[in-house]
Amino acid sequence: MRSLNFSAGPAQLPLPVLEQLRDELLDWRGTGASVAELSHRGKPFMALAEEIEADARRLLAVPDSHAILFLSGGATTQQALIPMNLCAAGETADYLVTGHWSKVAIKQASAVCAVHTVASAEDDGFLRLPEKSQWTHTKGAAYFHVTGNETIHGVELFNLPEATQAPLVVDLSSNIASRPTDFSKIGLAYAGAQKNLGPSGITLTIVSRELLAREGMQRPDIFKFASHAAQGSMLNTPPTLNWYILGLCIRWMLGEGGTAAFEARNLAKSSLLYATIDQSAGFYTNSVAADCRSRMNIPFVLHDAALDAVFLEESERAGMIGLKGHKALGGMRASLYNAIALKDIEALCAFMRDFQMRHG
Amino acid sequence: MRSLNFSAGPAQLPLPVLEQLRDELLDWRGTGASVAELSHRGKPFMALAEEIEADARRLLAVPDSHAILFLSGGATTQQALIPMNLCAAGETADYLVTGHWSKVAIKQASAVCAVHTVASAEDDGFLRLPEKSQWTHTKGAAYFHVTGNETIHGVELFNLPEATQAPLVVDLSSNIASRPTDFSKIGLAYAGAQKNLGPSGITLTIVSRELLAREGMQRPDIFKFASHAAQGSMLNTPPTLNWYILGLCIRWMLGEGGTAAFEARNLAKSSLLYATIDQSAGFYTNSVAADCRSRMNIPFVLHDAALDAVFLEESERAGMIGLKGHKALGGMRASLYNAIALKDIEALCAFMRDFQMRHG
Repeated sequence: MRSLNFSAGPAQLPLPVLEQLRDELLDWRGTGASVAELSHRGKPFMALAEEIEADARRLLAVPDSHAILFLSGGATTQQALIPMNLCAAGETADYLVTGHWSKVAIKQASAVCAVHTVASAEDDGFLRLPEKSQWTHTKGAAYFHVTGNETIHGVELFNLPEATQAPLVVDLSSNIASRPTDFSKIGLAYAGAQKNLGPSGITLTIVSRELLAREGMQRPDIFKFASHAAQGSMLNTPPTLNWYILGLCIRWMLGEGGTAAFEARNLAKSSLLYATIDQSAGFYTNSVAADCRSRMNIPFVLHDAALDAVFLEESERAGMIGLKGHKALGGMRASLYNAIALKDIEALCAFMRDFQMRHG
Repeated sequence: MRSLNFSAGPAQLPLPVLEQLRDELLDWRGTGASVAELSHRGKPFMALAEEIEADARRLLAVPDSHAILFLSGGATTQQALIPMNLCAAGETADYLVTGHWSKVAIKQASAVCAVHTVASAEDDGFLRLPEKSQWTHTKGAAYFHVTGNETIHGVELFNLPEATQAPLVVDLSSNIASRPTDFSKIGLAYAGAQKNLGPSGITLTIVSRELLAREGMQRPDIFKFASHAAQGSMLNTPPTLNWYILGLCIRWMLGEGGTAAFEARNLAKSSLLYATIDQSAGFYTNSVAADCRSRMNIPFVLHDAALDAVFLEESERAGMIGLKGHKALGGMRASLYNAIALKDIEALCAFMRDFQMRHG
């Protein structure tokens, strides 16, 4: 039996995607081989890559002004590559700090460029966004980096900042394709696939051709976004199986109505879970400010931490996995990515109410 | 029906591996989820990673003096990271040039360190190894890089050079696990999995702990081998599905008798194909010197290039794919990695003899 999987990533995949993958695993499209066994330079895979690019562009409404790169590795690698590609030597990059992942982005960047913190919500325990009146920008910053959704702290940036003179760079790892995004206002966005769009091991980087033309720093060719773009993301052997599964997920999302349909679902799912938490009379708590409560990752604590192990054990027995909170915060966390259905959240909330009745 | 797949990589996977992957795709080890859907920090995947590390260490006979890293991306990324990790600013790295991939390694490295070419076989069309008496080494070089097997030119280095004062760095991308290797003589070896060991998107880097302790250059944490080693290759979200399939391939190889058994098979397979080529009275030609003819990748040309398209069309009709040569050399290329059986090569040779009779 399939579990209800609330893992923060790698995360649940849509069942039709897994079934198609399974059914095609010995013979894909009549090639007599798994898609994982085919040359990326051969016609079947080249055609697939083109299809996926077109589907991704349609799903995400990416304008022609932007390239879509399909890169190996995860978001952390992108966090190292972004300053190498967008900063010239001596330039400064601006970062808004809204949680753990903003800090990881700064950690990677500060090895190669000067970093300025525009504002940080750390003193508030990352329970709210930094007060906008207190943001300070660097004049002439190479770019302005924000984290679209903080997976650990459960803080989401629903309104991207207006571009300053510096182009906006956005980590969309945990909320890409969860709702419509206006990419024309973004210089570069990146997202590991393993939350809303597929398995780990492949990352989407959506970058304006204007930024691609930047010289950046001296670096190996394999670290140049422009070289990957010029070769259709086949500068070297790409992660073909991951790319294929990503493509299946994108097509599944298109068939389900696209990002607008998923926004409605994700709003319904997260509203239901927040309501269950808020109406528990303090048995469950989520302290994030209402205007930035994430629709993707909902951390919550039980009123008595001694119940944590019981909650995890009982939920697992009820067929629910991946609810253990990140070690930085403890407690629980439910991740509600695109492959999670409203009925899965209904089941989780019913379990939570039942658990409260029995242990409250 | 399954094709006979002679692709240079991504390449054929063992059928039992694909079947197991297929059968476990909706529910792996009773978790109610695909292995691709599980958190890499959860117990089931952590246990799997430990099993694979132990299996890889056993299969490849890696001594305790060396760490095994499972990294995302391919060999080209390693070619950029190696000088960043092993060279201090201003140091020189030595490279032996035996074909296309040696040159790619130099291209990546020379963006970050000084590179010295120990010797090159380019003037000989890469048909033989550079004459050893003419090798020149840099005194105090940070390392000495060689390419274990040249996938495009079909040139294999069967005897690794004795270490000079500089530790040996070896690209084993296309011949790892094809025969026993003495890792105690190697400072660092790296190999994308997509030829002998699994799907693309994951790379094995086997590195001595002595080299791990080198300071290297200023670089982002995600580019530090030592950081990956300290975190058991889970510094960030790893490519879990690829890691799992790699593990299945390693276990399959252990069950088949390990690297010694595969050396015998690969010797038999390649000898048969070279004999078929050499006994074709010039209908088929491979011009690589006998002492470095690759057991993994065998490029050959037909005496009349006008027959190339016919050969490809007829072989494909006979259920054989991936025989088109690399564009740099034209002609044909058969890759004979571990998942290819002797009977597959017998079938290929029978086809080639038949083709010659009909078109000779």
